[in-house]
Amino acid sequence: MPTKLDDARVLLARANRILANEGVLDAFGHVSLRHPTDPSRYLLSRSRGPELVQPDDILEFNLDSEPIKPPTARLYSERVIHGEIFKARPEVMAVCHHHAPSILPFCVTGAAMKPVNHLGATMGLRVPLWDSRDEFGNTNLLVVKPEEGASLARALGPNWTVLLRRHGATVGGTSLEECVFRCIYTALNARMQIEALLLGGFEPLNDEEIDLAGGANLRPGPINRAWEYWSVRLDKVEGTHTALPGSSATKRSVPKKTTAKKSAPKRAKNRARRRR
Amino acid sequence: MPTKLDDARVLLARANRILANEGVLDAFGHVSLRHPTDPSRYLLSRSRGPELVQPDDILEFNLDSEPIKPPTARLYSERVIHGEIFKARPEVMAVCHHHAPSILPFCVTGAAMKPVNHLGATMGLRVPLWDSRDEFGNTNLLVVKPEEGASLARALGPNWTVLLRRHGATVGGTSLEECVFRCIYTALNARMQIEALLLGGFEPLNDEEIDLAGGANLRPGPINRAWEYWSVRLDKVEGTHTALPGSSATKRSVPKKTTAKKSAPKRAKNRARRRR
Amino acid sequence: MPTKLDDARVLLARANRILANEGVLDAFGHVSLRHPTDPSRYLLSRSRGPELVQPDDILEFNLDSEPIKPPTARLYSERVIHGEIFKARPEVMAVCHHHAPSILPFCVTGAAMKPVNHLGATMGLRVPLWDSRDEFGNTNLLVVKPEEGASLARALGPNWTVLLRRHGATVGGTSLEECVFRCIYTALNARMQIEALLLGGFEPLNDEEIDLAGGANLRPGPINRAWEYWSVRLDKVEGTHTALPGSSATKRSVPKKTTAKKSAPKRAKNRARRRR
Amino acid sequence: MPTKLDDARVLLARANRILANEGVLDAFGHVSLRHPTDPSRYLLSRSRGPELVQPDDILEFNLDSEPIKPPTARLYSERVIHGEIFKARPEVMAVCHHHAPSILPFCVTGAAMKPVNHLGATMGLRVPLWDSRDEFGNTNLLVVKPEEGASLARALGPNWTVLLRRHGATVGGTSLEECVFRCIYTALNARMQIEALLLGGFEPLNDEEIDLAGGANLRPGPINRAWEYWSVRLDKVEGTHTALPGSSATKRSVPKKTTAKKSAPKRAKNRARRRR
Repeated sequence: MPTKLDDARVLLARANRILANEGVLDAFGHVSLRHPTDPSRYLLSRSRGPELVQPDDILEFNLDSEPIKPPTARLYSERVIHGEIFKARPEVMAVCHHHAPSILPFCVTGAAMKPVNHLGATMGLRVPLWDSRDEFGNTNLLVVKPEEGASLARALGPNWTVLLRRHGATVGGTSLEECVFRCIYTALNARMQIEALLLGGFEPLNDEEIDLAGGANLRPGPINRAWEYWSVRLDKVEGTHTALPGSSATKRSVPKKTTAKKSAPKRAKNRARRRR
Repeated sequence: MPTKLDDARVLLARANRILANEGVLDAFGHVSLRHPTDPSRYLLSRSRGPELVQPDDILEFNLDSEPIKPPTARLYSERVIHGEIFKARPEVMAVCHHHAPSILPFCVTGAAMKPVNHLGATMGLRVPLWDSRDEFGNTNLLVVKPEEGASLARALGPNWTVLLRRHGATVGGTSLEECVFRCIYTALNARMQIEALLLGGFEPLNDEEIDLAGGANLRPGPINRAWEYWSVRLDKVEGTHTALPGSSATKRSVPKKTTAKKSAPKRAKNRARRRR
Repeated sequence: MPTKLDDARVLLARANRILANEGVLDAFGHVSLRHPTDPSRYLLSRSRGPELVQPDDILEFNLDSEPIKPPTARLYSERVIHGEIFKARPEVMAVCHHHAPSILPFCVTGAAMKPVNHLGATMGLRVPLWDSRDEFGNTNLLVVKPEEGASLARALGPNWTVLLRRHGATVGGTSLEECVFRCIYTALNARMQIEALLLGGFEPLNDEEIDLAGGANLRPGPINRAWEYWSVRLDKVEGTHTALPGSSATKRSVPKKTTAKKSAPKRAKNRARRRR
Repeated sequence: MPTKLDDARVLLARANRILANEGVLDAFGHVSLRHPTDPSRYLLSRSRGPELVQPDDILEFNLDSEPIKPPTARLYSERVIHGEIFKARPEVMAVCHHHAPSILPFCVTGAAMKPVNHLGATMGLRVPLWDSRDEFGNTNLLVVKPEEGASLARALGPNWTVLLRRHGATVGGTSLEECVFRCIYTALNARMQIEALLLGGFEPLNDEEIDLAGGANLRPGPINRAWEYWSVRLDKVEGTHTALPGSSATKRSVPKKTTAKKSAPKRAKNRARRRR
């Protein structure tokens, strides 16, 4: 019987691959999840491109970002980003650090990132910009030292998204699904905002709208709908897509995912059934 | 023997997946079809990402957007968009509400959306912009209350496309295929217009050209040609593509998959029906 | 034994699908080839999305764009574009009419399209802009009447590419492969030029460079290399890709699909022929 | 037992296909590797689209860019780019010449290309712009003569990336993986910089940051992580992807394709080697 930790590993590996499949992460960037039963730990993959991450790649870290077990593989050098935010923000359950191409122009120009539609409102009311030079002078721009991570966490403050000058973004969530949702729709909103900025005369959501629309879209309904969508898209790309529930053609084949493990033969069987 | 309603469900599910495959819809947005035999009802999927919608997901609603049967699944919260437009516009047979990335800059800047080529002319002569704040003040931007839907329907007026400030677009059609065509080519036109706007010195179609070109492209010939194209593209992505009629070269190479075998005749029949 | 006409049909069908696969054509647009043995005729598909065109879809027309045999299917309404250019320009062997998204901003703003790299030089020294309003006033923008086609052919003059105001482009070639090359690299150049225009301070190739670079890239070497590349990309998408000649590593792994079996030798032969 | 040269051929063919798969190369452009045991030679494919290059396509050249064996196939006309840079820069082990769409606007406007994030810093401190007109007047823009290659190599100087006015870019590396990394992240950085330039108020990395961040990202850790990611992406596209090491869930599901069978162990070995 899979434990809560097993399930968390499967979920986090999937979030890695979803964020890669939707263009938020590439060879770099990472996403973490607070440990499901021990809030003083978090889960993060060993160092590898997120599109490739599988449950067995997921390791445990304490909030000082030290691995619980002696590592046998390379670790992400920037994991303090995760540890320091989990430390500073007990309600944060997941953190993603990324370099989505659409947010970089904001990181370079300092133009304020603003929600331009209701889904973008999930980025939060304010998106601060952290400049590593302010406290640390010239660096390689990576957030590697605990004090760098802590400084970034302070810049994030009570918000959900923070931009890193000349580097990327870091995003939190009260759940992994919320964090993924925020990343994807913030990146999409950024592209829309760039074009709106270029056309001029641009009017974003006002604060009350951001608050209302952000809240509305982070309820379970929209979040689950989006997660199912991204998850099926990933399954299609990975060749593990089975029929969707809710269609008599397909109703029979609801995947009982324990992971890929148990379902592989079942998947094949389901597929055969559907074809008859 | 499939009833008209069965056929409508199959067609509407396919329209959902086509609009997703062509990038108009993502996890959100929805498309509806007036009931084929009862004009006081319309068909709409239960709440789920359009790329995933199957015929069994399609439910019936009255024009007040209440489900005919007690629902066992979540419903789209914004279905009044569909009901109120079907109420106000008896000639409208299909409605799509979407957030295509290329139209959002117009929703945010208030720049007027204009046809820049003959296919874009299908958006219609005028594309009004509805601002939820005008009547309802600050909201979560979703169109959920009947009076919000009715207000949007009034803003649409006799036109075919209406933009929703800081939100997206809503598009009608005298058939589902026309509605899909209008959505896709309006989104494409929007991208072209943005680039033309940035380059300056921009000259759109004049009113007579919009009228003539819009009419020419919404005749059965072009609409069926485009529908067949989008439909085959979807089949390819879904792995259900079989050889195209009219090609002896490909006829020989129909893959002997068991999957394709049994469903091929049905698919072919559906296609033939649609083409008439 | 396939005749020259059979071969031409296969080649033209493939050019249709290559241009669709590379994003130049979508549901609309068309490409034609002068008849291989009778210069007073040309070949063009029946009306269907180019991505779907198979050899059996290819029909014969005289230079007045009347079908040689009574048609049993819908025809492209704009085929006079092809007939009138073949009439006016005996050295033109292939014509493509398209609405590639990157060229539309030029059709709308009237900004002059210019080569910005050596491959874009294949568009030719001058790209005139034809405005249907000048001679015909307000129309549906389609080029349907013989006199409209003739007017467009005059606007093309001795050049290889002509833009149609608020509509698209028409492109000729001394061979089908040359025409496809010109379409694809002109569309790519257009995107580069738009961004250069936006950045300002833009310096295109000068006339002598256009002449020299255009000539260099339209020799058999580059054209065949590009055609092989686009052709393999198409084969991959269509699932008919087999191992590439010249690689012992892959020779062993030719998939033993029954589908691929019968058409493989023919495909190989066509490819070999083209490379000479 | 494969020799070092065999391995180099496999690696270089793969680099060709990775650069094509990631959008840096299309039908044109090429990438070379210095001979693994004889520094007075280099390896380069025969003339063919990089997406198609297989180990057997790789030929040997001396630093004057003459083939070691009499060639039986067409050669790239621009191979002096590679030879002259290998001659001038003994520490350069790999060279790529490309026309990535995002760098062309810089080649046309003369706007200075600058790193805007830490990964872009790998382009190097300075990216000179070489204009063929300065020394050679109007040409077809191809770099074909030894003196043209030598002039370009001088323009590159001690740097790692040089832009070719109205043409493209040429990039060196101390290893093939480094060269590929630099190409991909420079092209991505260029797109981000264009958008930042359009938005104005743009602040790139300063020299010390470029130096530190460039150095940090070209260490074995990041380079191997990126190479594994691009390599798996290529395997997925080519249908040769097998389960990833480090995941027990997937280990069991290695596809039993005859195709994959023979090459799988070799692939795994190559991958393992690269990771050390």
